[in-house]
Amino acid sequence: MSVAHGGDTPLYLGIDGGGSKCRVVIVSADQQVLGEGLSGPANPLRGMKTATDSIISATQQALTCAGLAFNDMARLTVGAGLAGLNVPQYFKMFSDWQHPFKALHLTSDLHIACMGAHQGQDGAVIIIGTGSCGLAAVNGQLIEVGGHGFPYGDNGSGAWFGMQLLHKVLLSLDQLAPATLMTELLQQQLAVQDTMALVSHFMHATPTTYARFAPLVFTAAEAGDDTALQLVTQGAGFITAIARRLLNARPPRLSLIGGLAPKLLPYLPADIQQQVTPALQTPELGAIWFARQSSSAQSIALSL
Amino acid sequence: MSVAHGGDTPLYLGIDGGGSKCRVVIVSADQQVLGEGLSGPANPLRGMKTATDSIISATQQALTCAGLAFNDMARLTVGAGLAGLNVPQYFKMFSDWQHPFKALHLTSDLHIACMGAHQGQDGAVIIIGTGSCGLAAVNGQLIEVGGHGFPYGDNGSGAWFGMQLLHKVLLSLDQLAPATLMTELLQQQLAVQDTMALVSHFMHATPTTYARFAPLVFTAAEAGDDTALQLVTQGAGFITAIARRLLNARPPRLSLIGGLAPKLLPYLPADIQQQVTPALQTPELGAIWFARQSSSAQSIALSL
Repeated sequence: MSVAHGGDTPLYLGIDGGGSKCRVVIVSADQQVLGEGLSGPANPLRGMKTATDSIISATQQALTCAGLAFNDMARLTVGAGLAGLNVPQYFKMFSDWQHPFKALHLTSDLHIACMGAHQGQDGAVIIIGTGSCGLAAVNGQLIEVGGHGFPYGDNGSGAWFGMQLLHKVLLSLDQLAPATLMTELLQQQLAVQDTMALVSHFMHATPTTYARFAPLVFTAAEAGDDTALQLVTQGAGFITAIARRLLNARPPRLSLIGGLAPKLLPYLPADIQQQVTPALQTPELGAIWFARQSSSAQSIALSL
Repeated sequence: MSVAHGGDTPLYLGIDGGGSKCRVVIVSADQQVLGEGLSGPANPLRGMKTATDSIISATQQALTCAGLAFNDMARLTVGAGLAGLNVPQYFKMFSDWQHPFKALHLTSDLHIACMGAHQGQDGAVIIIGTGSCGLAAVNGQLIEVGGHGFPYGDNGSGAWFGMQLLHKVLLSLDQLAPATLMTELLQQQLAVQDTMALVSHFMHATPTTYARFAPLVFTAAEAGDDTALQLVTQGAGFITAIARRLLNARPPRLSLIGGLAPKLLPYLPADIQQQVTPALQTPELGAIWFARQSSSAQSIALSL
């Protein structure tokens, strides 16, 4: 074991816990990445045992990777950004967790994504992945918009685009709306022609199922399909509304994150595109910034 | 037991099997209603055992009510309109059923609703309940549009309106869209103020959950709320498109059925409103027409 992370120097663990996977990173006091780990879902919606098992398993990987012992878990000051923690009941469940760490600071996955994107400084992010949501962190204030879940929220997200695609295709197949290139693209991708077979593919669809088909809307729009272009305009409108609301708080930077972000960016108004800057760091490194700031705020509070 | 339904006269059983309940009626050869029965879901989506148990239980009720014995089940010529039977796999499962009846003729719940509405004659129906769909029966041809399921289909239905209401309320609470009276109406009905509490009510929402809130959209629209009025216009647009498509087939009559039909009717274009006529009979009596026509078609086929 090197002197740099000997028994008395502080160690930080950053956790990005999402609905499908958990990424963690161990960072030294002098900001060196020592080890990383990856495991399954760490979202309390899947149950506390699944979530905490995922966190411990990814942490053990990261400790091994850093040349540390499992016992060193007790030395880690942890920042955890977890999906679902905005629900008070899940926040309470995690606050009550008898965790094995030195300290555990909890926030949402959206918050650490924002802290990572702007290296712990003020800024705003919009996540456009399977779901969609936005957050601005300015002068210690957090403004959160969007999200809320599917199908009534997560507007302009991958799930939203995929569901709208199916909606428009079915209207067209029923001769209730004009023909659209999206019909052929969807039939091709699923390798079925028949309406009933198309629909049966979505009978128990999750947001992830729908999101898989979102890129087809952009393919059709780029080929000049009117219906697809209307959908892209509508989706971009939702993201634009989120962006304007966040920019009202005057964040110094704005980043778009998530698989659909590069596809939607060209359809946003020019003045918003100009303000978008790349995310500087990952969410799990954002969780490290959160851990540092939370523990130093705590030290200040204790010394007062 | 009266002579009217003695051992050798034909008896008909009409079944309207939906996702939440099963209604049956026994009718004599001279069109007298002899008995009725009601039970749980008869939709094969819930499993064949649940569906067939519901059918048998409602039939036993109707036989008792008619002063007939359970053994008389073997005398019944049955017409059954079942939700989900448009899916080939479920049609096959019901066709293979070792049923206790004299004969069993199968079709969709939509088809028997249409036959009931027009007393077995040609015509068209649009059902606007928890879901939405339309059918025209003209010169032996069936044209079916809409339906397909929620959230991508069932446009303009109760589930669609309830989901759109929540969508608009959340946009408004996030300050991404103008204020709407629907927010107060929803908060009142659920007796919660907080956004998180509102959303958590819909976390595992079914189409039925959403449909419960559809009437609030109409209340707000009637009070002059712009957002609600836009939704009603959009929903009425979907139903209008279905109506125009069905009227293309020149059905002699058009009926609107389902809980939301009276609410939506005033928002349809005048030329469509003028063509709407009340449904003459219930779907289960439509199933009786279907049983009579199917069995006489069979007799003709056998005698050729």
